Amino acid sequence: MMLYLTRRERFSAAHRMFRQDWTDEKNMEFFGKCSNLKWHGHNYELFVTIKGEVSPETGFVMNISTLKEIIRERIIDKIDHKNINLEVPFMEGKIATTENLAVSIWEELRPFIEKEGAKLHCVKIFETENNSTEYYG
Amino acid sequence: MMLYLTRRERFSAAHRMFRQDWTDEKNMEFFGKCSNLKWHGHNYELFVTIKGEVSPETGFVMNISTLKEIIRERIIDKIDHKNINLEVPFMEGKIATTENLAVSIWEELRPFIEKEGAKLHCVKIFETENNSTEYYG
Amino acid sequence: MMLYLTRRERFSAAHRMFRQDWTDEKNMEFFGKCSNLKWHGHNYELFVTIKGEVSPETGFVMNISTLKEIIRERIIDKIDHKNINLEVPFMEGKIATTENLAVSIWEELRPFIEKEGAKLHCVKIFETENNSTEYYG
Amino acid sequence: MMLYLTRRERFSAAHRMFRQDWTDEKNMEFFGKCSNLKWHGHNYELFVTIKGEVSPETGFVMNISTLKEIIRERIIDKIDHKNINLEVPFMEGKIATTENLAVSIWEELRPFIEKEGAKLHCVKIFETENNSTEYYG
Amino acid sequence: MMLYLTRRERFSAAHRMFRQDWTDEKNMEFFGKCSNLKWHGHNYELFVTIKGEVSPETGFVMNISTLKEIIRERIIDKIDHKNINLEVPFMEGKIATTENLAVSIWEELRPFIEKEGAKLHCVKIFETENNSTEYYG
Amino acid sequence: MMLYLTRRERFSAAHRMFRQDWTDEKNMEFFGKCSNLKWHGHNYELFVTIKGEVSPETGFVMNISTLKEIIRERIIDKIDHKNINLEVPFMEGKIATTENLAVSIWEELRPFIEKEGAKLHCVKIFETENNSTEYYG
Repeated sequence: MMLYLTRRERFSAAHRMFRQDWTDEKNMEFFGKCSNLKWHGHNYELFVTIKGEVSPETGFVMNISTLKEIIRERIIDKIDHKNINLEVPFMEGKIATTENLAVSIWEELRPFIEKEGAKLHCVKIFETENNSTEYYG
Repeated sequence: MMLYLTRRERFSAAHRMFRQDWTDEKNMEFFGKCSNLKWHGHNYELFVTIKGEVSPETGFVMNISTLKEIIRERIIDKIDHKNINLEVPFMEGKIATTENLAVSIWEELRPFIEKEGAKLHCVKIFETENNSTEYYG
Repeated sequence: MMLYLTRRERFSAAHRMFRQDWTDEKNMEFFGKCSNLKWHGHNYELFVTIKGEVSPETGFVMNISTLKEIIRERIIDKIDHKNINLEVPFMEGKIATTENLAVSIWEELRPFIEKEGAKLHCVKIFETENNSTEYYG
Repeated sequence: MMLYLTRRERFSAAHRMFRQDWTDEKNMEFFGKCSNLKWHGHNYELFVTIKGEVSPETGFVMNISTLKEIIRERIIDKIDHKNINLEVPFMEGKIATTENLAVSIWEELRPFIEKEGAKLHCVKIFETENNSTEYYG
Repeated sequence: MMLYLTRRERFSAAHRMFRQDWTDEKNMEFFGKCSNLKWHGHNYELFVTIKGEVSPETGFVMNISTLKEIIRERIIDKIDHKNINLEVPFMEGKIATTENLAVSIWEELRPFIEKEGAKLHCVKIFETENNSTEYYG
Repeated sequence: MMLYLTRRERFSAAHRMFRQDWTDEKNMEFFGKCSNLKWHGHNYELFVTIKGEVSPETGFVMNISTLKEIIRERIIDKIDHKNINLEVPFMEGKIATTENLAVSIWEELRPFIEKEGAKLHCVKIFETENNSTEYYG
C-alpha cells in the first residue's frame, strides 16, 4: 500500500530574476518587473510530497514531524528571511526562478528523505496565489 | 528536467445545465437546481498546468506572463461576465457542465501552448470550493 | 459579557446590474461588464454576525444551528441557484448591487434573529475574493 | 475522454495515535503529542476524486450530487463529530493515522463509486492546513 | 496614531459540549452532535488583536514576535493536542463552547498584553470555516 | 444607509526593518531576522475599506472599479515588485514596518477616496497569513 504524504512549509525571501551576462536593459526587457534591480520578494509556499509503503506497525509512511524537521533544517533555515540570489547556498550561480528553486530544493531534500526509507515524489512551490511550479525529479 | 507550471485565473459567469431536446421537467429532474430556467452563476477558478524542459538560458519552462496572456486572451476575455450557454463561442451546442468546459478550454488553449514550445498538461476548474474537474487530454 | 457569533453560508446566483429607465448603452457605460445583458453570476459568500449576552446556563449566545437554519430558510433557499433580478422576492425592484443585497438580507434576517433574543450586528457579502460589502444597520 | 471529478467534504472528529500493545510512555515517545491520552481532534478535509468517460448525453462523468451523497452516507455520517478510535466501524482495530484513514475510506467508497460506473482515483485527506495524505489504491 | 495588530495561531483539540447536571439525553437534545459522549475535535484558528500607539522609535505597536510568544506560552501550550473539557486549566468548570473559550482566552491574555504596554482588543476563534466567535472584553 | 465596501489588492515587495542610527548588531537584536542586511520580502495583501451612503440612483457607495483604480494608481504601481525601503516615495525615511505602511497608505489614499464622496474607513495589511495590521485613521 503506497501512500503519499505532503507537508506544507512557508518562507519569505527577496529575489530578482536576471542573468549576469545580460545588461540591465535586456534583463528588464526579458524578465520584466521580476528583474527589478533593487529586489522584490514573496511569501513562498512549499509543498513537499513523499511516497512510501505504510508501516503496519505504526500506520505511518514517515512520521510527518520528521519530514517537517528535514524541510526546516535543510531548506527553511537557509532561505527564510534571506535574499535568494545572494545568501542561499543551494541557489548559488542559478537564475532565481521558481523552476530552478524547485529543482534545487528537490536535490537538497532527496538524500534525507531516502535516508528515512521513503521516496521524494514532488516539490511544489507557490510564488503567489496565482503562480506555482512542480518538479517530480 | 521536466517541470510543471500552473497559472490560476478566475471568471464569473452565468450558466444553466440542460438538454434542448428534454422538457423543462425532465431537465429539472435530472440536473436539479443547476437547471434553473432563469440561470444561476459561479465564480469559476481555472488552473492551467503546462509542462516542459527548463531552459538553461532563462531558468523558465515558459514565461508565466506569456501563459497568463494566452489564458486571458483565449478564455477569460470570452467567458468572464458572460452567459456560458448563450455567449461563449467554444461552448456553443454543448451542455454547460464543468466537464465539457474543461475539455473545451483544453482544446482552445493547446495550440497556443504548443506554439510556445511547451505541452498542455492539465486544465482544472473549480465551480465551487467543493466541486472541481480535471482534464489531462 | 457581550459576544459576537458569525455564520458563513454560500449561494450561487445569476445577476445583472442595470436600471430599467436607462438604455442598454447607458447601463453598459455606467455598470460596465457587470451589466452584461444576458447575465453573469457569482459564488457569493455571506457572513452573518449576531451579538448577545452569553447564557450562563448554556455557554451560548445562540445555538449556531439555529442561526444556520434561519439563514438557510430566509435567505439561501430563496436565492441559491436563482436569478437575483428575476426570482428573489426580497430583491424585487432593486438594483442588484452587493450593497442592496446586504441591506435586503439584513431586513429579512433581523426579525428572526431578534425573536431568538439576539441582535443582528453585521451582514457581510463577498461577491468575489477581492470585493466585499458590509452593512451594520 | 477521461475526466476527473473531485468532491470536498469535511468532518470534525477526535482521535489519538497509539498502539494498544505499547505502554503509554512508548506511545508518547513515538507518536508525541498526537498520542495524548485524553484525545485531541481535527477538522478533517476529505477530497474524493473519481474518473470516468464524460457521457455525451449528459456532459457528466457522474452527477456530483450522487458523489456527495455517497461520501456523506458512507463516510461523513459515520465519522463526523465522533471519536475515530472508538466509534468508527471502518477504523476498528487500526491505528488512527491519516494514512490508515485514507486507505479505509478508499475501501468503503470504492464499491459504491464503481456501482455508478466510474472509477475511484484518489482519496486525499488534510488533517491540518500543513499535513495531508493521498491514496491512489 | 492608534494601530491594531493581529496574530493568528492554531490549535487542535478535543471537546464536548454538555452540562454535568443534565442527563446525556438532555445534553444530546440541546447540544446535538456537539455533545457526542466520546468527544469530537477541531482545528481551531485563534486571532488575537491588540491595539496601541505606534512607537516612533521602532515603528511597532508591539513586536509581533512578543505577541506570538505570549499566545503560545499562555494559550497554545496549554490547549493544543489536549481535551478542552478535561485538561485545560482555564476552561475548568466551564461549558466548552467557543463563546466561553473566547472569554477565557481573553482573561488569560489580558494581563500579559498590558504588561507590554498595549491593549487587548479582540479574541476571535474559528471552530470551523463556517462558525466563529468574537469577544471584545 | 451607511455601507462599507472593501477591495483587496496584492503586492510583492522586498524590505528590511532597521534604524539607520543603530548598528547592524542592534538592529538584528531588536528586529531579528526581519532586519536581514540583504533584504527579504513578502506577498502583501492589502484590504481597503471605505464607507458611505448607498446612492438610491445606482445602488453603489462607490463603483468598486473606481476604488480598484485608485488603489492601483496610488499604491500598487508604486510598491509592487519594488524595495519598500529604497524605492517607495511614501515610505521614504520611515521604518518599513507594517504599521508604518498602513498609516502611509492611508494618507496616500484618503484624498482620492474623499474626492469620490466617500470616507476611508480602514487600511488592513497582511504581511503573512499569520500577521496583519489595521489602521482606522
